[in-house]
Amino acid sequence: MSENEERYLELGVDVHKKGIGYFLKVIPNLFPYAFTTVVLDPEDKDTGLILHVDGAGSKPIIAYLCYKEMKGHGWFKGLAQDVVAMNIDDVIAVGAKPIVFADYIALNAIRIPRDIVLKEVSSGFKEVFEKLSAIEREFRITPIFAGGETADLPDQTRTLDVVGALFARVKINQVIDGSKITEGDVIVGLRSGGKAKYEDRENSGIMCNGLTLARHVLLKHEYYEKYPELGEELVKRKYYGTHSIDEYIDELGMTIGEALLSPTRIYAPIIAEIIAKYHDYVKGLCHNTGGGLTKILRLGRGIRYVKDNLPEPDPIFKLIQREGKVSWREMYQVFNMGIGFEIIVPKDVADDVIDISEKYGVGAQVIGRVERSHGENELLIRSKYGRFLYRRMKE
Amino acid sequence: MSENEERYLELGVDVHKKGIGYFLKVIPNLFPYAFTTVVLDPEDKDTGLILHVDGAGSKPIIAYLCYKEMKGHGWFKGLAQDVVAMNIDDVIAVGAKPIVFADYIALNAIRIPRDIVLKEVSSGFKEVFEKLSAIEREFRITPIFAGGETADLPDQTRTLDVVGALFARVKINQVIDGSKITEGDVIVGLRSGGKAKYEDRENSGIMCNGLTLARHVLLKHEYYEKYPELGEELVKRKYYGTHSIDEYIDELGMTIGEALLSPTRIYAPIIAEIIAKYHDYVKGLCHNTGGGLTKILRLGRGIRYVKDNLPEPDPIFKLIQREGKVSWREMYQVFNMGIGFEIIVPKDVADDVIDISEKYGVGAQVIGRVERSHGENELLIRSKYGRFLYRRMKE
Repeated sequence: MSENEERYLELGVDVHKKGIGYFLKVIPNLFPYAFTTVVLDPEDKDTGLILHVDGAGSKPIIAYLCYKEMKGHGWFKGLAQDVVAMNIDDVIAVGAKPIVFADYIALNAIRIPRDIVLKEVSSGFKEVFEKLSAIEREFRITPIFAGGETADLPDQTRTLDVVGALFARVKINQVIDGSKITEGDVIVGLRSGGKAKYEDRENSGIMCNGLTLARHVLLKHEYYEKYPELGEELVKRKYYGTHSIDEYIDELGMTIGEALLSPTRIYAPIIAEIIAKYHDYVKGLCHNTGGGLTKILRLGRGIRYVKDNLPEPDPIFKLIQREGKVSWREMYQVFNMGIGFEIIVPKDVADDVIDISEKYGVGAQVIGRVERSHGENELLIRSKYGRFLYRRMKE
Repeated sequence: MSENEERYLELGVDVHKKGIGYFLKVIPNLFPYAFTTVVLDPEDKDTGLILHVDGAGSKPIIAYLCYKEMKGHGWFKGLAQDVVAMNIDDVIAVGAKPIVFADYIALNAIRIPRDIVLKEVSSGFKEVFEKLSAIEREFRITPIFAGGETADLPDQTRTLDVVGALFARVKINQVIDGSKITEGDVIVGLRSGGKAKYEDRENSGIMCNGLTLARHVLLKHEYYEKYPELGEELVKRKYYGTHSIDEYIDELGMTIGEALLSPTRIYAPIIAEIIAKYHDYVKGLCHNTGGGLTKILRLGRGIRYVKDNLPEPDPIFKLIQREGKVSWREMYQVFNMGIGFEIIVPKDVADDVIDISEKYGVGAQVIGRVERSHGENELLIRSKYGRFLYRRMKE
């Protein structure tokens, strides 16, 4: 284990997801080098099925802290968009159509009234699906909302956990699986910060990964003393920052709470239009969730990705790095660093793809290129913060 | 709130799932009086789709305690069967075919090694799907396993939470939705205890609901002092029982730990055969999960269910009732009390249905009948422990 990885591991989070190999062995995945697992429809051999499950990570803890400190309703609502984004953008990354969405909320009703959480989160789902269906074009991206499960688990859940499941379909011959990625292709990166035209306000770019690290690095320890339900007792260093949740930070242009709670951008409307217009040129799609800017390592094989034209990270990432003294190597592995979604296309299509993204108000640029590797996939990040090489882990 | 409901509420669990109405308003459910939500396939108007999410409740805490006290590997494995049962038997209750299953595990890796949990749970999934596919007959019940998500959430999850998502399909004209239930029909109950022919050992019958109450009522307080991660600090009375987890109880024929960890029986092979042979006579199916023996209230409308021929509850339920001094009224609302699945059929089909269940080694009997109600559904339970009337809550 490298020294750089220890910061997040000491908080109980393993970006490499050790142990996941046990699962991979028992899954009949049709496209093992694609972004998401696709299985064959047992009743239609031309169709691939996806059942995806992903949650808002530890973001609900920030919502809880805002609720406790500032009262006022509405803190839990954005979590609905977070879990929709985490699922819808993972399935669109293989070119699939979202069909049905369901949620799972594990709740400690002794700490938070059920009523408040369920009212806010359900209205959040309603809003996000209405918004998506208003902006979707040729390619349907809005799933049907089928409800879900709320579980009272006060002994397991210190506060709450918000998760989504999404069922999606894709024609087998339309799956974007990374197999066509070749030397010379470029990586177009879409910004996670700023404000898309279909969003109501400025986004910090944080999305849903790295929140545990961000929280402990930025927030002051008094919160843990006041609300021990904010964290695991056995973690030695926790909440060792200097900030209040409602502190306005000039460099962020918002409060710490707003920056950490910024609902994850949904890229699906943009990606859907790109797929509809340029399907045969879209060789790989990557949603930069767990693993941050190194997530792309899972796509295709025998590839060396080089990212040497990354934009300046959004202020929230620079704040976390600086105040937490987190190594830049680890930063790129934990956070999206300002690029939430990546599209691998031949060089001559890049400008068209960038135009589509910018039409939606989401900044985009060529951030790197594809070379050949002679072994497992690797990724070279070259930025003004250093030169870092990452390798795909064997599972 | 009745006094009887307070016992479980003081532990932070609400059997009525207050607040769930917010969700029901935004779900385009085709069959609001069926057991499970069914939505229309946007690409095939003859097909209903189900995306179901359900977990093992607080059963993982027992697995954790066994792991801490007795070491030895294997304690987490049965949780795989629990979450498969919780999902597969909920979707088969509308007559649907399971297609794809995915899991979600939220883990505190500071307390439990990821490696152990993932190895055991993944092998549990492998085994349970292999077993199901070996016993399924005309009607396919074994879903494809599509993997899922493990989330490191040490600040939210004191120990672990194990959840499943299941996608299923059903022809719209084949949905079993309770609408044909009429006066004079009978309720056939299938036992949750004992040993089915396709099971390896005796089952206590506990399934996955009521575990929070069971745990606090039966287990001694020393455990909480030794492992504060076993529960929510703010709960006043917790772990107020007298038993050790490894204590053998004659009346149970097994240890307390074994009884509380007994993997939930999967009824799907039996129900699938009943549906294949008697589809047009099967008017309603009920999986007795949250809500216990009162779960049937959600099926159909304008119905008064009368259960006046219940079997003697399995020993685990009598132990919980006696040692926890839980009211019988509450017992029936929290636990399945020995009947895990119910089938509503015309009287003259009951014997055939019972024969099929008994062929699999699962005891079955007519436990009650259907009468007409003039308002919301109601349920009358008449047993030697008392006469209890329950009403369907307005949502």
